[in-house]
Amino acid sequence: MKIGILAIGDELISGMTQDTNSSFMARELSAEGWQISGILIVGDDGQLIEKGLAHLMGISDAIIVTGGLGPTSDDMTTESIAKAFGLTLYTDEAILSRMKEGFRAFGLPWADTNTKQARFPEGAVIIDNPVGTACGFSLERGGVIIAVIPGVPREVHRMLPEGVVPLLRKTFGETGETRRRRTIKSFGLTEAEVAKRLSDLDIGPGIEIGFYPRFPENHIVVTARGGSEKEVDERLGRIEEGIVERLGKYVFGYDDDTMEGIVASILTKRNMTLAVAESCTGGLITDRITNVPGSSAFLERGVVVYSNRAKTELLGVPPEVIETEGAVSETTALLMATGVRDLAKADVGLAVTGIAGPTGGTEGKPVGTVFIALANDTGSFCRELHFRWDRRRNKEMTAQIALELLRRSLVGIDIHG
Amino acid sequence: MKIGILAIGDELISGMTQDTNSSFMARELSAEGWQISGILIVGDDGQLIEKGLAHLMGISDAIIVTGGLGPTSDDMTTESIAKAFGLTLYTDEAILSRMKEGFRAFGLPWADTNTKQARFPEGAVIIDNPVGTACGFSLERGGVIIAVIPGVPREVHRMLPEGVVPLLRKTFGETGETRRRRTIKSFGLTEAEVAKRLSDLDIGPGIEIGFYPRFPENHIVVTARGGSEKEVDERLGRIEEGIVERLGKYVFGYDDDTMEGIVASILTKRNMTLAVAESCTGGLITDRITNVPGSSAFLERGVVVYSNRAKTELLGVPPEVIETEGAVSETTALLMATGVRDLAKADVGLAVTGIAGPTGGTEGKPVGTVFIALANDTGSFCRELHFRWDRRRNKEMTAQIALELLRRSLVGIDIHG
Repeated sequence: MKIGILAIGDELISGMTQDTNSSFMARELSAEGWQISGILIVGDDGQLIEKGLAHLMGISDAIIVTGGLGPTSDDMTTESIAKAFGLTLYTDEAILSRMKEGFRAFGLPWADTNTKQARFPEGAVIIDNPVGTACGFSLERGGVIIAVIPGVPREVHRMLPEGVVPLLRKTFGETGETRRRRTIKSFGLTEAEVAKRLSDLDIGPGIEIGFYPRFPENHIVVTARGGSEKEVDERLGRIEEGIVERLGKYVFGYDDDTMEGIVASILTKRNMTLAVAESCTGGLITDRITNVPGSSAFLERGVVVYSNRAKTELLGVPPEVIETEGAVSETTALLMATGVRDLAKADVGLAVTGIAGPTGGTEGKPVGTVFIALANDTGSFCRELHFRWDRRRNKEMTAQIALELLRRSLVGIDIHG
Repeated sequence: MKIGILAIGDELISGMTQDTNSSFMARELSAEGWQISGILIVGDDGQLIEKGLAHLMGISDAIIVTGGLGPTSDDMTTESIAKAFGLTLYTDEAILSRMKEGFRAFGLPWADTNTKQARFPEGAVIIDNPVGTACGFSLERGGVIIAVIPGVPREVHRMLPEGVVPLLRKTFGETGETRRRRTIKSFGLTEAEVAKRLSDLDIGPGIEIGFYPRFPENHIVVTARGGSEKEVDERLGRIEEGIVERLGKYVFGYDDDTMEGIVASILTKRNMTLAVAESCTGGLITDRITNVPGSSAFLERGVVVYSNRAKTELLGVPPEVIETEGAVSETTALLMATGVRDLAKADVGLAVTGIAGPTGGTEGKPVGTVFIALANDTGSFCRELHFRWDRRRNKEMTAQIALELLRRSLVGIDIHG
């Protein structure tokens, strides 16, 4: 089956907003085994919407339209689609009263312009919006299914899998196929290295593999197809085993896992506590850790010791060490890790110090020089790294490697490799 | 003038790669005063390329094609375009020998498949590639200019402004117009409130205004056009004054300004120092602050006091206060702000404590309850807020308001409003 995507919005064609919905949808729909015939982005312009729709009708079995369902006069998607197919619009009273109730519940004033969002082309089937005001709808024309949903990414992420995909599956017939997808997340290898390690993998029938670099991680997405749950599970299990075997310690998680989430779940399970001392990352490590709900169970404290005085006062790094070896040095990093562990009486102390740039480098310690140290009940360890990105990317890579070293130390992988 | 964009590549329609070129080009071309008729993304498929081209020909004065100019058999852009217009291909010997020289200079082995990149449709005008192997080309058909360039973002960023834009300007004539764009950044008003406050604005000739919500900020982009620099500056100045007057203290910056950048530049200029104590934001405030190069000049330290013990030990918040009023309370927030200011001997202390969620709320203090406190040489101040987003958004909004309160206190705007 071939699917066309039509994204509507002036902000998308002025270049002010990057259209990320279409890429997300293309990924999800491809995983279903469907092909994308084209992605077309047009402004809020009735004529261009109609012409675009006609173009996609000619090359697609289904079209998914996003955007232009807001309450203002700029939003003309519903109207344009009705016009393109010669349909009149009606007001859905049930949806209108539900919208009014929603506004009351949130204490928001009702404006009559909102009524627009309860109007649909005759014969349309409503697609529910679980996270927003504007419902979507679908209709069929000349054998082509047209599904229309709002352009708010948060809404697309719910309405595509919950509303649109089931509809397309139902319309174009279940294939009798069972499908399952698994994302294997790796960190520490380049995309080329991942591909090389997997080059001798026997992929076999019913399996598709995709590589998705997600800086600084590399994700491998495996889709298995087959006639039964058992067959699909077997295929997926076999290929996953082959991938994990080849990528080894570089695999840190699956599907919705995050590096900080993995670390959090191990620390929580073991009733261990963590304290973090950051210099160049400026709080990014604890920011990521505290994105995990329940992180207060293990994160005792963090300190952002940006000044040398803070390193000395809070963590006991002697001024002489900073003077002779430098604030960015192995000795300082190790003293920061043991210092914050002692200060917080935590099981693990994690510390980073470095030069994020763009200035502050010297000949011996250029911009991008970073030391990451870890202290636990078995001792302490430090790793020196050199990056050459911009300030933000240097921070991000430092935080990621710090979390990865913490993960490896917790699961007993050699962290010296 | 109306410009269509055609982006070609299987990786773009599978969702593996986000097409960022088109958005970049749309922004650059809009700034020239040209309109984008549509952005169409198709895979490496000759038929779909031809049909897409035909669609864009019908709605555009010029078409810019990116991608599919590589040396492999997948890359069929040149061939498809030639076929669409009934043109034969020829090998440009000058370009071929330059390519071969380039390979020699870089010590790369020459493969005959590369010859493909020296083949162009008859009558095409070559567009030079200053940063890659594949040259682009342009041709004219039925009054429509078609410009073709590679899809590598680094190459697009050079070839669009250096090769394509001058060509279009030359073909469609200089407008004799001068243009300038200005982004006015506001925070603290909803999009609807911004629109309402600006509703009586006298926009006048040669001015366009666009509204761009960038959670949690609202940006207003003004484009001024006119016959001379003086006229444009006058128009832009007048409209900017009108907008700033109406949005008042909610305007925090312009163009590339960020909230943290504004705060950083004021603190640096005044030789003031800052210390931050974070609970629910977990380091996000100092992470943002330390994204600004040179922030070590004013950020003395930050502490992420996630445990109650850390609040007491580091900041001197008495256990009795936490016991009776709570870790999330005005008293605790104020003690954190004065505590971190004293600890760091800084000019300003900024503190936040709250319940980011999804759990941890009580009837009296539901999830989303946040206290933000600020201490300086004139005393201390606390604001209570209630959010109802998810954990991450609650953190983001808290960090943003904390920075905004700091900004207002520094520039002398009433922070009690």
